[in-house]
Amino acid sequence: MAQPAVCFEDFVIGQRFDAGSVTVDGDEVLAFATRFDPQPFHIDQQAAEKSIFGGLIASGWHTCSMMMRLMVDGYLRDSSSMGSPGIDDIRWLKPVRVGDVLRVSSTVLDIVPSTSRPDRGVVMTLWEAYNQKDELVATIKGRGLFLRRAQ
Amino acid sequence: MAQPAVCFEDFVIGQRFDAGSVTVDGDEVLAFATRFDPQPFHIDQQAAEKSIFGGLIASGWHTCSMMMRLMVDGYLRDSSSMGSPGIDDIRWLKPVRVGDVLRVSSTVLDIVPSTSRPDRGVVMTLWEAYNQKDELVATIKGRGLFLRRAQ
Repeated sequence: MAQPAVCFEDFVIGQRFDAGSVTVDGDEVLAFATRFDPQPFHIDQQAAEKSIFGGLIASGWHTCSMMMRLMVDGYLRDSSSMGSPGIDDIRWLKPVRVGDVLRVSSTVLDIVPSTSRPDRGVVMTLWEAYNQKDELVATIKGRGLFLRRAQ
Repeated sequence: MAQPAVCFEDFVIGQRFDAGSVTVDGDEVLAFATRFDPQPFHIDQQAAEKSIFGGLIASGWHTCSMMMRLMVDGYLRDSSSMGSPGIDDIRWLKPVRVGDVLRVSSTVLDIVPSTSRPDRGVVMTLWEAYNQKDELVATIKGRGLFLRRAQ
């Protein structure tokens, strides 16, 4: 069986990966929020205009999910990823609006080999999303569990 | 204008809110992951069976989004919520599978009045999701910004 392109031992602290960009789609903002986060400022144009946001904004969970997709396309899909035990923090810093273009990067913060299972370890990363105005709109500090390359 | 049912001053530390349950839908697991998290163990039945999970599992972002919806239906929709500045941590503790029934609750951990803006404050909550086997599958510690009731 082919080895994945990216395994635990390939990560280096400080390494930065540019995961490309995504344009925030209006239909998807509404569809996501209607199903998962139907608060007025996510689904009701008029209510959103009267809110502190001054217009419709994407659900924060949608923003995280868009960031995730870029990471899967960028390196996770062809990696030894075994999923994630969790997230250390998320910050939603600026509203994300329809038509925004989010550029997403991942920086390796720490690498923690498993003490009980020498074939794997946890990689801690900081994901950052900037919009087209170079404003930092969201950050995710998360953990991924990866296998080492099979010997 | 009618006051929202739930405002900042209505939260009490330790208060627990039962947000009901959701059954994890197979089509939605595939649709969500295909769009946002297309890793093999989320979208490819055969690859998932060979993975450490032994079968398809929902994206962790999908699990969080399902939890969010229960909270919106439960109390956020008719509240003075102004959105969330962020999440303090997420733990994905057990795989979430198609057909699982997730019961979700919210417990108030802390209440922090704004020092600069007396009309609002942050409520810190712990959201917990248990499956039908009473296993804790996911937790989210998050922050919500709420207005006080208008005087």
